[in-house]
Amino acid sequence: MAIIIGIDPGSRMTGYGILQQTGDKLTYIDSGTIRTDTKEMPERLKRIFNGLTRITQHHLKYADEPIYTAIEQVFMAENPDSALKLGQARGAAIAAMVALDLEVSEYTARQIKQAVCGYGAAAKEQVQDMVCRILTLDFVPQQDAADGLACAICHAHSSHSMNKLILNSAMRGRGASKKKGRWRLTEEDLGNLR
Amino acid sequence: MAIIIGIDPGSRMTGYGILQQTGDKLTYIDSGTIRTDTKEMPERLKRIFNGLTRITQHHLKYADEPIYTAIEQVFMAENPDSALKLGQARGAAIAAMVALDLEVSEYTARQIKQAVCGYGAAAKEQVQDMVCRILTLDFVPQQDAADGLACAICHAHSSHSMNKLILNSAMRGRGASKKKGRWRLTEEDLGNLR
Repeated sequence: MAIIIGIDPGSRMTGYGILQQTGDKLTYIDSGTIRTDTKEMPERLKRIFNGLTRITQHHLKYADEPIYTAIEQVFMAENPDSALKLGQARGAAIAAMVALDLEVSEYTARQIKQAVCGYGAAAKEQVQDMVCRILTLDFVPQQDAADGLACAICHAHSSHSMNKLILNSAMRGRGASKKKGRWRLTEEDLGNLR
Repeated sequence: MAIIIGIDPGSRMTGYGILQQTGDKLTYIDSGTIRTDTKEMPERLKRIFNGLTRITQHHLKYADEPIYTAIEQVFMAENPDSALKLGQARGAAIAAMVALDLEVSEYTARQIKQAVCGYGAAAKEQVQDMVCRILTLDFVPQQDAADGLACAICHAHSSHSMNKLILNSAMRGRGASKKKGRWRLTEEDLGNLR
């Protein structure tokens, strides 16, 4: 049993998704976004830090399970200016977690998409759709929140090799092809997901 | 009376400098660097966050004066990768300050050099040297620590228009030329500073 908090940081919008992992089962707990579209960067970072701290403290207080956190690792942004802004949001998000003495795991966008969609070049909408299927949600989370959930799912996979099991249950009966021992989405599947 | 904490964040080394401002007088309190040359970024950010938190908490506990913090604002890094790393260090540093409910002021490198050296394109060594003169230090602080002190001096200037006063006292008798109401270093002065 564990609680996994996945974070998708951004200077304008930070998404988070919280799951409970019980053996092979992933249960949706919460997801949302922290909006930071005020002008000054310190105020944005304060909202990210305080928002994530409050959300995490709630679970530290009421959950019996250990809490793990996962964050998307960015290797390259479009330009130095946006990289700097994204970096600061990421820095504040990670600071919030390490200040609570939690371990932070980092995953590349490719690893997250691979874990959730079965291949590393999936579109954002496909990630959103697969998150709903894997967690059997009856609503569609906002895109940044879905990215946070996807990051948490990725951590669950990597920590317990749940990849095959989850994809199996999500893909069963949906016509996806199993090649070389793992599910792969075909062009037809991608069409169905849209 | 106020305490000013100036921060020069970096992913490998974060410098800080602490001053006490009493009217026009700036008194050196402390300076140093937080080394973060471990491999994983979350661990680096943890050290920056925890280090700055501990240093600041000490002054929050024992100082009667209000505490202000100032940080160098970076507009452009060399490339997206270094911008992302620097951004994260900066994010963690600002998060440490805002988590303690302190206000963070941002200054460009140009503003800091202008405030400390009298012109915005000064070299790092000149900043280090002028910091020693302004604060009448009998030792030379490490370069990143000096940059932290320079940032704190810049904040003191901008908050109380102490610019002229401090430069006057630092430059008096050193042959600097006063043009258009402010001190300007000549090429000869720069030679003397090296």
